[in-house]
Formats: sequence, structure tokens, C-alpha cells
Amino acid sequence: MSDQTGAVAELVEQLGRLPGIGRKSAERLAFHLLRVSESEALALAEAIRRVRQDVRYCETCFNLSEADTCALCSDTSRDTTKLCVVEQPRDLMSLEQSGVFKGLYHVLLGRVAPLEGIGPDQLTIEALVDRVRTGNFTEIIMATNPTVEGDGTSLYISNLLSEFPVEITRLARGITAGSVLEYANREMIADALTGRQKL
Amino acid sequence: MSDQTGAVAELVEQLGRLPGIGRKSAERLAFHLLRVSESEALALAEAIRRVRQDVRYCETCFNLSEADTCALCSDTSRDTTKLCVVEQPRDLMSLEQSGVFKGLYHVLLGRVAPLEGIGPDQLTIEALVDRVRTGNFTEIIMATNPTVEGDGTSLYISNLLSEFPVEITRLARGITAGSVLEYANREMIADALTGRQKL
Repeated sequence: MSDQTGAVAELVEQLGRLPGIGRKSAERLAFHLLRVSESEALALAEAIRRVRQDVRYCETCFNLSEADTCALCSDTSRDTTKLCVVEQPRDLMSLEQSGVFKGLYHVLLGRVAPLEGIGPDQLTIEALVDRVRTGNFTEIIMATNPTVEGDGTSLYISNLLSEFPVEITRLARGITAGSVLEYANREMIADALTGRQKL
Repeated sequence: MSDQTGAVAELVEQLGRLPGIGRKSAERLAFHLLRVSESEALALAEAIRRVRQDVRYCETCFNLSEADTCALCSDTSRDTTKLCVVEQPRDLMSLEQSGVFKGLYHVLLGRVAPLEGIGPDQLTIEALVDRVRTGNFTEIIMATNPTVEGDGTSLYISNLLSEFPVEITRLARGITAGSVLEYANREMIADALTGRQKL
């Protein structure tokens, strides 16, 4: 834009690369960052720098961590007989926020997606098999996303792990708490009926 | 969050302060910034830093500028007899993108908003009056937002400028191009009728 200074145009351009941020939103955010106190604007810049500089993957479970081993893997109060397998660190965060699971995690850093050229080798599956082989896990909970690719990844991994004396489970499926049956789709209803529980 | 490293939590916190970015969006953006190449993430941090370091207000019109005088004020091909008064630099940008106006601008950096404690002294109105006094403007176009406060600000300024031999105009109001009369509200229809033009 001829009326825009280079620095503002550059900031709009960079903000516009973020997912879900269109041109207009990027402009709005850029003007916000110009209007707030300098310290607030620079705090965001610094947070981005720091996260890229300090955060890496845990060597054990591949969760995000600022140390070689993440806080969850270092926590001796966790149940080391249960291992929950998730696709991404953000999935781990969702599960952890529920507070129900007290075991350990393993982050695959993706899912098998042949159409995108993502095979099992690009995930942390080898490390997972090693953990199951050397650990004392009794249950592996597959918590991949309930999608075709997530289900496929879980199936692939459960086949690999079938040689070990562990129970392999997956998250329950059915109707969601607070939802309305009228609007549930066919798959949800089928899952809910198939997995029906005693009252 | 106990499961989040400090740096990630800090980034989520900082992103969550942006307007229109809720908790979930902030988490999504943070994970995006962790997943993209380091250079792309740092380019955003650098753009924020640079915009706060290099961008200031033009000494003449208070548009954003990386020099003491902005590109528009320095442009000798602009019509120096017409001055368009806007609230914010982003309004200037919108007008400039339309390509219709070839004169100069004056950015108020806000509007008179008594309920928020913003009086005329906090805007660049004094500088505006000086420009009109010393310049050779023949027309001042009030392009504040069509809100109660924007209209009030325009009225206040037009009273101040009434002592000078300039014509004071405001943006036309009416139905918007491409809109549907059925959904136009009462004020839009009233503006359109009051300002009706010869076909």
C-alpha cells in the first residue's frame, strides 16, 4: 500500500500469515500493537522469541518442554503403568485440563496420513514402541482424534504393540455431554448405541 | 496450567491480550508459532519490534510514518487545497485505498468521547486549527466515523474552523453500494432520503 510505511505493512503481512487471521484482522491487530504501550507490544515479540528459543520436545514423551525431560515425565507422582498416546501437544493439554488421567503421555507429533505423504516413520512411533518394551506399562490408551486418519493411526500402533503384554484401549465414543440427540449425527448415535453402558 | 511450560503459557497469555483473540485462539496461534519454521516465527517478533521502534506519528498530519514527515505530506503531487480529517490512521488507509481523494489528511488520533473522559485537548485538534490557519486549504472534509461521537467531534471541529474562509463538508450518507433496501435500518433510509440526488 502506497500509504503504508514499510514497517506497518510488514507487520500486517506477518500477522496475516497466522491461521484464521485475514487481511482486515491483521490490520486491526497491527494498529492495536501500535496503540498499546510499548512494553505490552514488545512483551508479545519477546514471548514469540522465547518460545522458539527455549521450547523443545521432551526426549521421552515429545511433549513441549523447556528442559530435556518435561514436567509430566519428571513428576514421580504420576501413574507409570498407564500411557496415553496423543497426536499433538495441544491434545495432551486438553486431556490434562480434564484432570481425570494421572498416567504418562506419548505425543506422536502427527498422525499417519498417506494422502499428505505422512508415514509412520515421520511420527514418534519407534520411540513409543521402545517405551512400551522397556517400561512397566499395563495399559496403553489410544487418544488420537476420532477421524479416519486418527483411527487408522491408532489401529496401526495397536497392531505394532500387540506383541507386548499390555492392554490397549481407546477413548469412549458416544453422545457428548450437554448435546441434544436431535442434532447428533448418525456416527455419533451409532457409537453411542454400540458402546452403551449399564445404568 | 501445570502441564504447560512457562514460555508457552506466556505466549498464550500475550496472544490472548490481542483484540478478538480468545483463550482457544491464543493456544492455536501459539502452537502454530511453535510448528512453523523458526525464521517465520521470528519474522513476526521482529516485525512487532520494528514497528514499535521505527514508526511514529507524522509531525504534520499525525499519520503513521517512519520519517518525521509522512509519505503523503511529502508528496508534492497531492492537492494542497483539500484536507480530509479522520479519526485514526486506519481510516486514512481505507480512504486512501479507494483512490478517490487526492488531497491531504489530518489524523485526530481519536474522537471526543466525554463518557470515556476523552476531551478535545487529547486529540490533535490544535494542530489542525494551526494547519488551517497557515495553509491554503479551501475545503475541509470531515471524515470521522458515522457514530454519535464521530458526528459530535466533526461538529465541534467545524465550529472551531468556522472563523476561517474554508468550506467544511462531510462524507455522504445513504444506502451502501451492493446492499439490499430490505435490510437497511431506519437511519440509513433516513440519510438516503434526506440526501437524495438528481438522477
